[in-house]
Amino acid sequence: MSEEKVSSLPKSIDLSHHLSNLAKSRNVSPLKDLQKYIQRPGLIQMAGGLPDPTLFPIETLHIDALVSNSFAKKNAKSSSFFGWIWSMFGGAPAPKTETYTVNKFAATPEEIDMAHALQYSSAGGTTQLQAFFREFTQKVYTPAYADWITLAHCGNTDGTTRCFATFCNPGDSVVVEEWTYPSALSTARPMGIKMVPVKVDGQGMAAVDLERVLSTWDENVQGRRPRVMYTVPIGQNPTGATMGTERKLAIYDICVRYGTLFLFINFSLSTFSSSEKSDMLIIEDDPYYFLQEGTYVPKSLRAKMQSQNEDDPMVFLNSLTPSYLKFDYQGRVIRLDSFSKIIAPGSRMGWFTCNPLFAERLERHGETNTQAPCGFSQSIIVQLITKQWGMKKFIRWLQGLQGEYTSRRDFMVDTLYELFDVAPATGEAAAFGAGLPVMTAYLKEPTNTITSISEKYKAVASKTPLFSFIPPTAGMFVWIKFHVGQNVILKPGETLTMHIFTDLAEEGLLIAPGTMFNVDESIILEREVAFRISFSSGTHTGYKVLITNDSKSKCPRVSRF
Amino acid sequence: MSEEKVSSLPKSIDLSHHLSNLAKSRNVSPLKDLQKYIQRPGLIQMAGGLPDPTLFPIETLHIDALVSNSFAKKNAKSSSFFGWIWSMFGGAPAPKTETYTVNKFAATPEEIDMAHALQYSSAGGTTQLQAFFREFTQKVYTPAYADWITLAHCGNTDGTTRCFATFCNPGDSVVVEEWTYPSALSTARPMGIKMVPVKVDGQGMAAVDLERVLSTWDENVQGRRPRVMYTVPIGQNPTGATMGTERKLAIYDICVRYGTLFLFINFSLSTFSSSEKSDMLIIEDDPYYFLQEGTYVPKSLRAKMQSQNEDDPMVFLNSLTPSYLKFDYQGRVIRLDSFSKIIAPGSRMGWFTCNPLFAERLERHGETNTQAPCGFSQSIIVQLITKQWGMKKFIRWLQGLQGEYTSRRDFMVDTLYELFDVAPATGEAAAFGAGLPVMTAYLKEPTNTITSISEKYKAVASKTPLFSFIPPTAGMFVWIKFHVGQNVILKPGETLTMHIFTDLAEEGLLIAPGTMFNVDESIILEREVAFRISFSSGTHTGYKVLITNDSKSKCPRVSRF
Repeated sequence: MSEEKVSSLPKSIDLSHHLSNLAKSRNVSPLKDLQKYIQRPGLIQMAGGLPDPTLFPIETLHIDALVSNSFAKKNAKSSSFFGWIWSMFGGAPAPKTETYTVNKFAATPEEIDMAHALQYSSAGGTTQLQAFFREFTQKVYTPAYADWITLAHCGNTDGTTRCFATFCNPGDSVVVEEWTYPSALSTARPMGIKMVPVKVDGQGMAAVDLERVLSTWDENVQGRRPRVMYTVPIGQNPTGATMGTERKLAIYDICVRYGTLFLFINFSLSTFSSSEKSDMLIIEDDPYYFLQEGTYVPKSLRAKMQSQNEDDPMVFLNSLTPSYLKFDYQGRVIRLDSFSKIIAPGSRMGWFTCNPLFAERLERHGETNTQAPCGFSQSIIVQLITKQWGMKKFIRWLQGLQGEYTSRRDFMVDTLYELFDVAPATGEAAAFGAGLPVMTAYLKEPTNTITSISEKYKAVASKTPLFSFIPPTAGMFVWIKFHVGQNVILKPGETLTMHIFTDLAEEGLLIAPGTMFNVDESIILEREVAFRISFSSGTHTGYKVLITNDSKSKCPRVSRF
Repeated sequence: MSEEKVSSLPKSIDLSHHLSNLAKSRNVSPLKDLQKYIQRPGLIQMAGGLPDPTLFPIETLHIDALVSNSFAKKNAKSSSFFGWIWSMFGGAPAPKTETYTVNKFAATPEEIDMAHALQYSSAGGTTQLQAFFREFTQKVYTPAYADWITLAHCGNTDGTTRCFATFCNPGDSVVVEEWTYPSALSTARPMGIKMVPVKVDGQGMAAVDLERVLSTWDENVQGRRPRVMYTVPIGQNPTGATMGTERKLAIYDICVRYGTLFLFINFSLSTFSSSEKSDMLIIEDDPYYFLQEGTYVPKSLRAKMQSQNEDDPMVFLNSLTPSYLKFDYQGRVIRLDSFSKIIAPGSRMGWFTCNPLFAERLERHGETNTQAPCGFSQSIIVQLITKQWGMKKFIRWLQGLQGEYTSRRDFMVDTLYELFDVAPATGEAAAFGAGLPVMTAYLKEPTNTITSISEKYKAVASKTPLFSFIPPTAGMFVWIKFHVGQNVILKPGETLTMHIFTDLAEEGLLIAPGTMFNVDESIILEREVAFRISFSSGTHTGYKVLITNDSKSKCPRVSRF
């Protein structure tokens, strides 16, 4: 976006009524307050308790990193240097690397060095890290308001924790997808935050159900209205669902509208109170953004697809489902980006994008727990992305990851198609897809002589379905729901999910039981017998070990192929 | 300590009544709970959302690190390879380094590698990191009970925050040194924790005053009795004070005794309640442990001192003032160790040592904020300490740091002795030292013809003292208290401390105003006009720019030498 376009964007609105009591009570750390003097040239600095960088034992890092085009782009016809598919057949060549260096003392102040990155600093990190966040966010997410800020955090778990502490008081409610990331639950619940499930469909959180939850909210029964949403909008964990643009617009609109709607109602009842606005913030936890694999195309049709040989990084970026930031004209989104899935989880680094008021309070929180992200992580990653690669090559790297995860997603879904008779669901089950195909898997005929696809689907439709799933369009997970097990005899206290989980684990396959992700604790028996299958890291042998049906117990079993 | 000796130690006592409501309400993260299955050999892992390490861009780190004997030991007569004193005179040779390597995939499972260190893992970090913590803690601190646990954290700020959250409810009180680390205050206060100052003397927190605070505590007026102490026992920040063994034993005894004492009182009043024991935990925040410089010896006498040429690391370790762990026979100490001062602050890594119950709850907290410390930090530091150096050379490195900081401390105090007339305080002022000499500085005579030391002290004794200080025996700081400024005209709202601070900053010297560290907010006017001067990172020119007196304003001024 041009400078002119940015300057014509609106500024963020005043959302200070969302700050928690904890956030409001944080002072600026008085030691950090000295930082502004420390930068003054010629000052003799005997105030801060800073160790001398000459006493840091690490002088230079020489880093062998993969070249940015190590992995083939999505649908590429040419082979990657050492793609996962190659390694399946034991024919992987040695990875091609290039070496770059980070010094303790850089030759120029523009370059990152360890004397600074490993020193105490502001919780926002080095100037080089901050510059990268800003440039990347502008280029990739193009926020719809002018005064957004980026701020380092130590991974999205740290980011989420800081958000809950900054925007929620004990007793507050937060709306979430009905199945969600368990660490978010583990963080919020001990803080006294109630997690309110909103139903999901094939596109993640359903706007219709969000509207229902908010419009039927009764503060006398349910407590203070929710003002915060926590959502994983792309490749959602655990359901794998991805919110499209229309869904995001619908949800954003509700988040804005519930401020004015509630004010209107209150006004008409003469109980107007500006401190009780009930507009909603959106915490957008988006670690899978670049793992957008797109629509699954069955194996037989993929060969005919056009390969992506486009070199312009903007074509790739524009092909991705946008972030909420793109629609956030008021500054009510707190976006969390992470290096965990695009560099490595152990980076323990990522960043917030949000309005300046929130960024300042989130930084104060950071000063009292982890301070800046690890200086080795800052040094290695900033130098790799901004110097060794540069932005264009970094985006090429992200395309390679997209390609890799697409291959894995395809292989996973291909395998399900191969091992089972798979047919599109119809009726209510199909509507759940919200535009995406819901597939139902049936136990395969021992001998299958039907060749016409429509004939085949007709043939299996009358049988008992084994499980159903939506081929995911992003992320790392396939979410499968079982339709079996009505005849299974459970031990006392055992759920059907845990019965199946244990059976599968005993057979040598570990998949994540859906109950781990269930927000609604009031439902003791499972609403659905669901599992999350991860295709991100499985060895190739894993993909061929899949669930089949035990004709005796009517329960899924693992078979090795 | 031998295996046999360890097994004869008592086990930690039940201190579960210290857990906060937050800590008690934390569940085991259900995702982490899968970890135990993941390790089972032969299992096909499609449960965890783990990225594949082949997709991490970093293949190998080649690290140039200083050799472990880069810095001379304390009082060593031979020159170090490139000591700070050398660099003062521009004659520093290039640092001598050796190169070591961390690979993505290690040849043996014993060795740390990035495939594991950069992957999601338990919040306790890699097995290699855990093994190092355990071995080092046993060797260096020799805890006095059998079942202690070490657990990774992301630096002592993270560690302190987790402690407050784990042991304090909102409204609780924590006892601290009357001047303390401001980040601890910034962390605790927004959590609703009241910080209760205990007077300090030359050995840090005064046991007598701790006893006074606890024995006169009135729950009706002051709220729930304090059950937690936060202390920086060595090279305290900001006062530089170090608690000796006797002081630690006296304080530990009070912490134990206030449990039984209070139970006894309650019992006699027939209001016995086991949930209201008022024994105290000790949070031992000890980043300066290895910067124990020992007693300051004036320059003229140092030349005659014996140099430390002892090679046995145990002689060095035994020369250090022990940790509280050495006396902790019940498991009521939560010790915080950090790499910030011995490797670099940007390591963002350190460890807790505490009883198993507390370690488990502190780990649960870690899972919901930062998870494990950064994997690059783990890789680089573990490989350096355990493989490149080994324990003996690592201890030699620590001796070098001790030597460096001793040189800096000596140079700082030497400079004060040179620029001012310095004499030992007498009477009440001297008693404050608690065994350490309190020195008073006077403006130097323009021409000083007195040569005999006793004559000189006599001559200056009648003049107005400028400031007083105790030459520190550990850490990075000299704490100076001004005796001047009674005639200074202050602006409205200005304190004398800030007046002096601004004057000095305008002259080009930045030292930290004592008010930043003041725990007792009820005292608006300063009890004392004090400053913290750091000698850890000042350039050599900084040491010669010191405070002198402006004869007109009777206020300190900076002079450049």
